[in-house]
Amino acid sequence: MDNFMQAAIDEAKKGLEEGGVPIGSVLVHQGKIIGRGHNRRVQSGSPILHGEMDAFADAGRQPASVYKECVIYTTLSPCCMCSGAIELYGIPHVVVGENQTFMGAEERLRAAGVKVEVLQDPTCIELMTTFINDKPELWFEDIGE
Amino acid sequence: MDNFMQAAIDEAKKGLEEGGVPIGSVLVHQGKIIGRGHNRRVQSGSPILHGEMDAFADAGRQPASVYKECVIYTTLSPCCMCSGAIELYGIPHVVVGENQTFMGAEERLRAAGVKVEVLQDPTCIELMTTFINDKPELWFEDIGE
Repeated sequence: MDNFMQAAIDEAKKGLEEGGVPIGSVLVHQGKIIGRGHNRRVQSGSPILHGEMDAFADAGRQPASVYKECVIYTTLSPCCMCSGAIELYGIPHVVVGENQTFMGAEERLRAAGVKVEVLQDPTCIELMTTFINDKPELWFEDIGE
Repeated sequence: MDNFMQAAIDEAKKGLEEGGVPIGSVLVHQGKIIGRGHNRRVQSGSPILHGEMDAFADAGRQPASVYKECVIYTTLSPCCMCSGAIELYGIPHVVVGENQTFMGAEERLRAAGVKVEVLQDPTCIELMTTFINDKPELWFEDIGE
């Protein structure tokens, strides 16, 4: 297990402990985490704070020169909002924990030239499978369904 | 001038007065504004708080049944992040102040079945033209360039 995906999983678990949606993300620049976050729909009452968005917010304002050297790690395949943010800021590489419980806009990212790696990590799959089973209404709210 | 686009312009002007990027947005449900916001990159140090995202955040958690009856008004053509949020939450109708100073992901929205109306409003064009001329580095940061 890559240390950065482990950090994203730690964020997801923190979200779960807080009663939230267990999805975490870290933004990594030249081998160093510059932003970390997890879904805060429940905790902040915000529909825009998906894990990836929270990591971008945590990293704060960064120049394009930094973003283009970043890798973003996320425990779940990024939805069209988060993929849009990744595309906007020109992040060249996304490492995805799993896309079995939810398939995001990976094809759109690839079409935009982004490298998308999918790990199908058992811990990530287990986190989401249990969560969706326990709180389906919260999950469907989170993906706009 | 539609009252809702005027409200979005008022938000953009508020952002300008605060020293920020002058883009505003309102989310309207059944003829009532349920969320309003403006770009807060400067004010909050956040790369995810574009005008439309700020309006979504202000509206808070809403069920899909509400989103699908909403119209979002934005003074500027929505970038791929904001378009992704509009698509995620299934907003069926977007009214855009102008797309002359920046062309967002309108074609992607239309391909997803979203109605996109562009007003080419002179006040919106003037706000952005002046801003881009005054603070080009801030503007390019905001669109990831």
